Amino acid sequence: MMAEHTVKAFDEDITRLRGLVAEMGGLAELSVTEAMDALIRGDHELAAGVIARDKRIDQLEAEVDKLAIRVLALRAPMADDLREVVAALKIAGVIERIGDYAKNIAKRVGIIEGRRRFEPLTLIPAMNDLAAEMVHDVMTAFAARDPAAATEIVQRDEKVDAFYDSIFRNLISFMVEDPATISSAAQLLFVARNIERIGDHATNIAEMVYYAATGANLPEREEVIPPA
Amino acid sequence: MMAEHTVKAFDEDITRLRGLVAEMGGLAELSVTEAMDALIRGDHELAAGVIARDKRIDQLEAEVDKLAIRVLALRAPMADDLREVVAALKIAGVIERIGDYAKNIAKRVGIIEGRRRFEPLTLIPAMNDLAAEMVHDVMTAFAARDPAAATEIVQRDEKVDAFYDSIFRNLISFMVEDPATISSAAQLLFVARNIERIGDHATNIAEMVYYAATGANLPEREEVIPPA
Repeated sequence: MMAEHTVKAFDEDITRLRGLVAEMGGLAELSVTEAMDALIRGDHELAAGVIARDKRIDQLEAEVDKLAIRVLALRAPMADDLREVVAALKIAGVIERIGDYAKNIAKRVGIIEGRRRFEPLTLIPAMNDLAAEMVHDVMTAFAARDPAAATEIVQRDEKVDAFYDSIFRNLISFMVEDPATISSAAQLLFVARNIERIGDHATNIAEMVYYAATGANLPEREEVIPPA
Repeated sequence: MMAEHTVKAFDEDITRLRGLVAEMGGLAELSVTEAMDALIRGDHELAAGVIARDKRIDQLEAEVDKLAIRVLALRAPMADDLREVVAALKIAGVIERIGDYAKNIAKRVGIIEGRRRFEPLTLIPAMNDLAAEMVHDVMTAFAARDPAAATEIVQRDEKVDAFYDSIFRNLISFMVEDPATISSAAQLLFVARNIERIGDHATNIAEMVYYAATGANLPEREEVIPPA
């Protein structure tokens, strides 16, 4: 049993740890939204902001790791508390990847041409909205330690995958019909794939939130492969 | 200071933890190699084996998480020992992703047609060999706690990225020259991208091996974006 002042110090550490993870999540969500805005508008400055923000997200992950290790070393938390610290460590790693995917989309702003020519460019932002919303809502579920919300978010990933399938087929059709679009369409394939991965990673976070809150695992999902 | 029997129990736990991570790494390396063999030969049975193995890798990750949490709870390790447990946790997460990328390649075996028509199909296996070797060597560096080897592996990622650039350009050329190849070539773009990510993840593991061994971080690398 921890002494009272130790419990208080632990609570403060955990609050700070969760605050850092929440901050990472907020920045990642902003990057997911802004990367798509930059792509749609061909806005290089906004894209540069997303790319720069990724460094801050990486720094925050390093802070989470450091603090988590300190908490484990100094407080030796047990049971629920320990699960919470481990979940924070793992969730920070996943958010860092979401930041990478957003950066990856932002980096393509300069190399995608003929933005008005693609019908998928109406589907891609809609897909991105879904993924950004999953990121937003999973961070809310994390803050509220809400396993029911986490379960619901996992189910949403199917919609993102369905969008991905449509966009993939559309882009292939565009390429076939007009070979001049191939290079840009190939870039958009990767953009769509990055968004699909953002949805997957939001789902991974939801699974970790569920685990941290309940100590049990959600059943495994199957990954979707795009059509040929 | 831990009592002698506690130290022994801790050493046994850490040995088991490292053994589980090594087993995961070995399976992931095998999957990376076999997924490409399956793709080249159009071998559906081999591909199915890779897909099935991914479940085992996922189970091992769950075992690593469980054991790491147990070690943290029961042994409350400090300094180097703590860093080691946290590194095992994080490395297991990255190996799980490498397994996913290999599975993802294996799942495309059924949907890539005209395998003989692509010049990139001589570059892709060479790229895959590099990535598989990185996975192999980083697990050796992990087993040996060798920061110098880890540093060397990080540098190799540039070669994988260079392969990726070439393959990307090649596949776009194929699509432009012969629209009948577009659908298969798009799948191969993703295969190449998956291999590129496997190289990135081997690099991530190398960084964690370096951190666990030294307590310091390697400088950050920049991600490569394919040409337009």
